[in-house]
Amino acid sequence: MELKNNLFTDDGWQIYERQFDPEQFVTTGSNYLIGNGYLGYRGTFVEWEADRFVGCNVTDTWDTAEGSEWRELCNVPNGLFTQLFVEGEQLSGFEGETLAFYRQLGLRYGLYEREHTWQGAHHKPVKISVERFASYDNLHLIAMRYQITAEQDTEIVVLTGIDGRVWSLNGEHFKSYRAFEEDGLIAVETVTGEFGIQIDVVEGLAIEGVTPVDRAMVERDKHILRGLTFRLEAGDTLSLFKYMVVYSSNDDPAPCERALADARAALATGYEALKAAHMAHWDRIWNISDIEIGGNLEVQAITRFNLYHATIATPAHAKLPIGARGLSCQVYQGAAFWDQETFNMPMFLYTRPEVARNLVEYRYDTLPGARKKARDLGYYGAFYAWTSGKTGEELFPDYFFTDVLTGRKLHNHFNSWQIHISPDIVYALWLYYEVAGDWEFMLDYGAEIAFEVAQFLVSRIHFKKDKHRYELIRLLGPDEYHENVDNNVYTMYLAKFAFEKALIIFRRMATENPEQLDALLAKIGIDRSATEDWQDIVDLIYLPQPDPETKLIEQFDGFFQLEDVTPAELRARLLHPEEYWGWPNGVAVEAQVLKQADVLQLFALLDIFPPDVMRANYEYYEPRTEHGSSLSPSVHALIATKAGLHDAAYRYFMEASTIDLYNMSKKVMSGGSFLGGIHTAACGGVWLMLVRGFAGFEVHGDRLRFNPVLPATWTSLSFALTFRYNVLRITITPDTLQLSSDEGNPAPVHVLVGEQEVVVAPGQRVAVTI
Amino acid sequence: MELKNNLFTDDGWQIYERQFDPEQFVTTGSNYLIGNGYLGYRGTFVEWEADRFVGCNVTDTWDTAEGSEWRELCNVPNGLFTQLFVEGEQLSGFEGETLAFYRQLGLRYGLYEREHTWQGAHHKPVKISVERFASYDNLHLIAMRYQITAEQDTEIVVLTGIDGRVWSLNGEHFKSYRAFEEDGLIAVETVTGEFGIQIDVVEGLAIEGVTPVDRAMVERDKHILRGLTFRLEAGDTLSLFKYMVVYSSNDDPAPCERALADARAALATGYEALKAAHMAHWDRIWNISDIEIGGNLEVQAITRFNLYHATIATPAHAKLPIGARGLSCQVYQGAAFWDQETFNMPMFLYTRPEVARNLVEYRYDTLPGARKKARDLGYYGAFYAWTSGKTGEELFPDYFFTDVLTGRKLHNHFNSWQIHISPDIVYALWLYYEVAGDWEFMLDYGAEIAFEVAQFLVSRIHFKKDKHRYELIRLLGPDEYHENVDNNVYTMYLAKFAFEKALIIFRRMATENPEQLDALLAKIGIDRSATEDWQDIVDLIYLPQPDPETKLIEQFDGFFQLEDVTPAELRARLLHPEEYWGWPNGVAVEAQVLKQADVLQLFALLDIFPPDVMRANYEYYEPRTEHGSSLSPSVHALIATKAGLHDAAYRYFMEASTIDLYNMSKKVMSGGSFLGGIHTAACGGVWLMLVRGFAGFEVHGDRLRFNPVLPATWTSLSFALTFRYNVLRITITPDTLQLSSDEGNPAPVHVLVGEQEVVVAPGQRVAVTI
Repeated sequence: MELKNNLFTDDGWQIYERQFDPEQFVTTGSNYLIGNGYLGYRGTFVEWEADRFVGCNVTDTWDTAEGSEWRELCNVPNGLFTQLFVEGEQLSGFEGETLAFYRQLGLRYGLYEREHTWQGAHHKPVKISVERFASYDNLHLIAMRYQITAEQDTEIVVLTGIDGRVWSLNGEHFKSYRAFEEDGLIAVETVTGEFGIQIDVVEGLAIEGVTPVDRAMVERDKHILRGLTFRLEAGDTLSLFKYMVVYSSNDDPAPCERALADARAALATGYEALKAAHMAHWDRIWNISDIEIGGNLEVQAITRFNLYHATIATPAHAKLPIGARGLSCQVYQGAAFWDQETFNMPMFLYTRPEVARNLVEYRYDTLPGARKKARDLGYYGAFYAWTSGKTGEELFPDYFFTDVLTGRKLHNHFNSWQIHISPDIVYALWLYYEVAGDWEFMLDYGAEIAFEVAQFLVSRIHFKKDKHRYELIRLLGPDEYHENVDNNVYTMYLAKFAFEKALIIFRRMATENPEQLDALLAKIGIDRSATEDWQDIVDLIYLPQPDPETKLIEQFDGFFQLEDVTPAELRARLLHPEEYWGWPNGVAVEAQVLKQADVLQLFALLDIFPPDVMRANYEYYEPRTEHGSSLSPSVHALIATKAGLHDAAYRYFMEASTIDLYNMSKKVMSGGSFLGGIHTAACGGVWLMLVRGFAGFEVHGDRLRFNPVLPATWTSLSFALTFRYNVLRITITPDTLQLSSDEGNPAPVHVLVGEQEVVVAPGQRVAVTI
Repeated sequence: MELKNNLFTDDGWQIYERQFDPEQFVTTGSNYLIGNGYLGYRGTFVEWEADRFVGCNVTDTWDTAEGSEWRELCNVPNGLFTQLFVEGEQLSGFEGETLAFYRQLGLRYGLYEREHTWQGAHHKPVKISVERFASYDNLHLIAMRYQITAEQDTEIVVLTGIDGRVWSLNGEHFKSYRAFEEDGLIAVETVTGEFGIQIDVVEGLAIEGVTPVDRAMVERDKHILRGLTFRLEAGDTLSLFKYMVVYSSNDDPAPCERALADARAALATGYEALKAAHMAHWDRIWNISDIEIGGNLEVQAITRFNLYHATIATPAHAKLPIGARGLSCQVYQGAAFWDQETFNMPMFLYTRPEVARNLVEYRYDTLPGARKKARDLGYYGAFYAWTSGKTGEELFPDYFFTDVLTGRKLHNHFNSWQIHISPDIVYALWLYYEVAGDWEFMLDYGAEIAFEVAQFLVSRIHFKKDKHRYELIRLLGPDEYHENVDNNVYTMYLAKFAFEKALIIFRRMATENPEQLDALLAKIGIDRSATEDWQDIVDLIYLPQPDPETKLIEQFDGFFQLEDVTPAELRARLLHPEEYWGWPNGVAVEAQVLKQADVLQLFALLDIFPPDVMRANYEYYEPRTEHGSSLSPSVHALIATKAGLHDAAYRYFMEASTIDLYNMSKKVMSGGSFLGGIHTAACGGVWLMLVRGFAGFEVHGDRLRFNPVLPATWTSLSFALTFRYNVLRITITPDTLQLSSDEGNPAPVHVLVGEQEVVVAPGQRVAVTI
């Protein structure tokens, strides 16, 4: 079927297009990304170079280019680079005539496909067929099949090898470049400037169908290429199989040897066998991760597009962050923000909890960075980085935006005042603990994070004696347009949550694991009396309440006194279209206009307010929200669902789930700077909207609960959940909710459907009328 | 002798000039001001009108013009207005030729004199001699003698009466204008728009020397004028005596009748007798207020110029504020700022304590406004207005500056974050109590202020449990370039001072006046346990200390981490010369560059740090200070003296004492807006520099102390002080300090000169070698 923007799907397992639109090369480069959580290879043409944002972004290669303040993941040399000359004319997609074009992202197996029939000024059409995948069987490998078919006898020259002139957002990371051949393999080895990370990219090539009449090696300008000349007869198909292998010295102490060995092995195994091994991994992933939508093929394809990108963005193999743009580009530095815990993690928590555990352990590993940040700012405990790379050092610079009106740098306080990042991490680790029921995990990792976050908050909080309450002063909430506010409601509730959980953990340890507790307290440098502060704060922390009349919750002290104006009116006040709306003197600073709605964001995390309160606040805040964040629409969809506002919920669901797929050319470039890439938190938000929203899924202690509200056009919504090592499969239709518990699950699962309680034993299937 | 800028003095009791510089009419209009604390009449020519900033500014006439946000004192109709036509040509000072000119401000008796020999295109020279004074014997009266002498026979037309088209900074205050004649007097009656204040200006005229050949009344365009035609023969002198009387309905319920009666009385009394009565008041003022400088006539005249302006700016007759520009113009709204307590009051405290008492009682009367402000901002107790008119309502608008780069209003927080105003008032009332030793005053006024300020601070302060200390968060100190800072050192120490004094007062009342205490607590709505909070804060408030190594005190948390750059370097970064340097994004916000130095300001108030600490901090902060405030140089002079930096002290003394006198045309107009006027706090600062600085005067409980450091060129420094109803006269020479106690003083006075203790009995004179 045809989707929007000339996109198509057949069965919801692929997205394809039949036209090449040269205007959209930035967007399509991101959307057609392949990846595996170790690397991401943009959906660009292999014939292109850095100027068209070709990139192979590799995790765990954080480095800062000389003269830059941005520590980011490296794009590595492009081992798929292949240039094609037909009768001396070069194929690029931008010159000559494209007679037929087909590009597909196969969501089922992460397969990029392209067919391109192209005619130059001086030759008859040639057809290029490309397929490639980033292997889940060997994360260091990208395999590509590149086939050329000629309609008439023709001479073709192929330059294929490695392009070492990589696209890099913020300066040159590589202080050295060494290209070499070994046993028919070619390789580029680079070393980064800041940390001296050695990166090796090796390419192996197999040729089938036609034998080259001439071979030469070409080295120029950081390219190492094989020059191959073929004479094709009409109907001939030439197949090139390229195996690109990437290792860095952060992966292996001998990255060069490992890369050469893997490339040799790939050549020996062959393309089809490599692909079969890769596909088996995707079968396992989709078995638990797929969400099926009955009755709406467009939503089905959109949903899988988001789940696919959420999956490949995530370094499931390691304890590393999920980048805010995944591995689709260097924007946001391949680093984690609070989105990781609040938007990306839920999907993994309830489908692949071992991935969620990795993410929590990543935060455990970065405790030293969080402790240092707290100390540097005059606090103690763990103040997590706003922008967190490998070590958890703060990567966010003090000066982020430049005032377009004056050219002066603006000192924003994302890194210093947006303290909710720390309790957000406790929130996520608590959810992991709830899902896994894993006390050992808590002893080994969770407790230390929770205690250190509590200690940080103790050092950050103020007591107001006259009001006999604790306050958090000078905050920046998720709504980043309002810096320097007090008692931001989202932060207050999350902080209380963090203290409550720290106390629960502490008390259970005091009873069950007293020696481990003492050892941990000694390590942190506190004694048991610290919990008196925690308890006091739990008892006396200021939590803004819904107004008894209006049911409105004030986002922060004094918010309702700000100018009440619409986002459109504010936009009309801009002196420059790219003006920043927030601190220190943007148009929204003194207005009741939000980047995203903190009160709704709070509802999205904590199920503590009744639907009428959620509805009243939705109706107040929604028209005042500018949605300057890609996180905003999915939260609106989720809360609208909970508040019974079904039309709004569906509208925001569609907006949130198509931020990347449909928003062609919007916000991908600004002032010559690349701002594209996949919004991974929005992808995670799709899972939230479907499962927490439309299926109404909540966890209440040991019990799962569903309050489904199926959108009108859908006939069914099916997905799987993992809870305490049980895999449950849920299918919701307009009038029933079916539950089936996989054979081999360890225990019966208690489920509430609305107010009906059911217990589903392993191997059992239950249907409940709703 | 000749001073700078073509100014002269003969004996230090006058400032005069012999050239009329039309460029300087704004500055000289302020400098040659006459006044008496009820009204101020600018040193402009009576021939001029509103476009040359003629103004008679009258206290207790606060009103807001329609469409304005500025409540300011009214300029009233000009009853001295006199236009002179010689052979049809009009004298203005700007046209024709000025053959001789002499303008003098007589400091001894507040006499403005002008002699002006002027020749038009068609006539021989005429000489005008003007003398006028604002009577201290009747504050509502200005008397003027206007004499015309002709060198040849000539016809002269004089238009004299009242010009009702007043200059007003921020809009038209008068909703009505009524001119009338009664019994030979002429009058203009106006009513203000906001509060309906009726203002009556009556003029009485006496003519001597020549009889007019023609008389007519002329009413046009809000002028009511007598048209008088004279035929002068060569050598004739025509004398006009004008008596301008001003009353408002805030002065008297029948202002018109009172003004008419006073004008009749003035005519009956006559000019010379009125002048004699007026001069007798100045004799009494100077008897206690004069400071004599031996050996430097320039400094002598400058000193008296400042003491003169400090005196006439002050409404000694009433409980009204001292305007930041006195009554010299409407700039700063005729309202009091913190300068009143810290710069203007000390001079009165130690010379005319009854004036200081009025100022404290003014703050008592404005407690309702201070309570309202605290309540409006979510606090309780008394948060005094940053800009305080009659009622103590906050007159400072939320949006003060306009960003010259964007045209957007800036939301500064002078009114909401600059909380030191409240403890500053406690500081001043405590000094008054110390000087007067007047416990009844404390019971009637001081205690209530002190308790309410303490309560305000309780509601504003935060306790940091982790550091076990109280903090004041989000402040703006005297250094207004740094808003939104924590634990500003000036504010912290003054807050502690306020709590300490509140506790002393409370405890003495508890012992000596328990019933009054209970009544006061009931009035405020607190009970005795409130003092537990006060004591706790005194014990635990955070007071930044000098670094043990460097002896530096950090102005606020994190100041030393700001960019270390010079004021000149910052100036070079300006995109527009009139850019505001401070909040939210001015060039100084993130720099260690100060408008004025809060640490030095603290030293100026509290004698608690040793000279080496003062010196180290002076040397650190002084080069980083931009002196964007007229308060800054006098504090630098004072602290440099205490720190033993004599050259710097003298340099800043000269700068501070000549801000108005020598700074011709600087900062008096900006973008077409009038910014002139007398810097009354700087005038008060001259007393501080001389008496607290060079004479080293301090009060230690019941004893006075002197540590004199006479500038090198001075042979003596003499002044009087009042302490506990004793008048002491002090003369410092390079090697002695002479003390004499007036006959009739009530008690011996204990004095420390350096470390030598002397007791001076009434009528006794003592000399101490220093």
